[in-house]
Amino acid sequence: MSKATGTHGKAEKEFKAAIRRIPNFPKKGIIFRDITTLWKDGRLLRRSTDVLYEHYKNKRIDAVMGIEARGFVVGAPLAERLGVGFIPLRKLGKLPGEKISESYDLEYGTATLEMHRDAVVKGERILIVDDLIATGGTALAAAKLVEVLQGKVVGFAFVVELSFLPGREALKEYDVFSIVKYTSEED
Amino acid sequence: MSKATGTHGKAEKEFKAAIRRIPNFPKKGIIFRDITTLWKDGRLLRRSTDVLYEHYKNKRIDAVMGIEARGFVVGAPLAERLGVGFIPLRKLGKLPGEKISESYDLEYGTATLEMHRDAVVKGERILIVDDLIATGGTALAAAKLVEVLQGKVVGFAFVVELSFLPGREALKEYDVFSIVKYTSEED
Repeated sequence: MSKATGTHGKAEKEFKAAIRRIPNFPKKGIIFRDITTLWKDGRLLRRSTDVLYEHYKNKRIDAVMGIEARGFVVGAPLAERLGVGFIPLRKLGKLPGEKISESYDLEYGTATLEMHRDAVVKGERILIVDDLIATGGTALAAAKLVEVLQGKVVGFAFVVELSFLPGREALKEYDVFSIVKYTSEED
Repeated sequence: MSKATGTHGKAEKEFKAAIRRIPNFPKKGIIFRDITTLWKDGRLLRRSTDVLYEHYKNKRIDAVMGIEARGFVVGAPLAERLGVGFIPLRKLGKLPGEKISESYDLEYGTATLEMHRDAVVKGERILIVDDLIATGGTALAAAKLVEVLQGKVVGFAFVVELSFLPGREALKEYDVFSIVKYTSEED
């Protein structure tokens, strides 16, 4: 039974219609799912927060962590709605305070995420959010950082899931929630 | 008469207490105002949106534009609260669609901001937001992009203003609003 049922299924359909397909970005053969067209619609922007809020409102979230940069657009309104704090997870060299970092593999080379050492307190229940999950490498690196500080990763929330890629498999130890699923590049 | 009076003055005091000073970041002699400690506090995160919402709720905003990346954290919740869309203004090479760009000077060299060509429709009333205003160069580049597409810049909103730098002067043709003002590096 997919999670894309009921009210949420209706949202999925509406969201898919608002997300733009851009072929060959960032490189040939990739279809980029451009969520900016969804965000430009004030009703859908709010609705995406509604759907995530409904899913997480009773999960005792202490803070929402957003992955730079699109994850900030998803995470900050959700944190505010939940009445909790927002933690930015940033790319190398952006955070000013004492921090910890985690590198992860990209198709070519590696990337690094950083988090302030005092961003998560031991035992805090953290929800990690981003706009989209593909292979899950970035999300997994985010989880490791939370766990280094002995925070508890309550789950992952995404607006878009490319379910033909192994992101959910990479995050199989965690609860993963997404609003819109693409089952193939052509979907 | 400063704008930092009344309810807003109270918010300013509380916010200043929550913003962390980090000396010598990003380089020697600069005191970085680290707003992540404010965002981690769920009550203050919401309160910052409250203050901005109160200021802009009757200004007929059609969309909120946030400047990458911290401007997304300020702008997305505000857009949602106002019930309007959110437009991300991004650094070079991040946006997938057809776009326009504007370069601006940094202390050393230049930087470039990009916006989707269809992000703003002629006549739309746009509020531009970022976490902090220093010299105003980035903000001015953002305004130019909106105006290229014949949008109307209704104003600029910031959480933090370094009022000892000439940001307000650079934006003198626009309405500028900030919650917290630092009048010197030592403030």
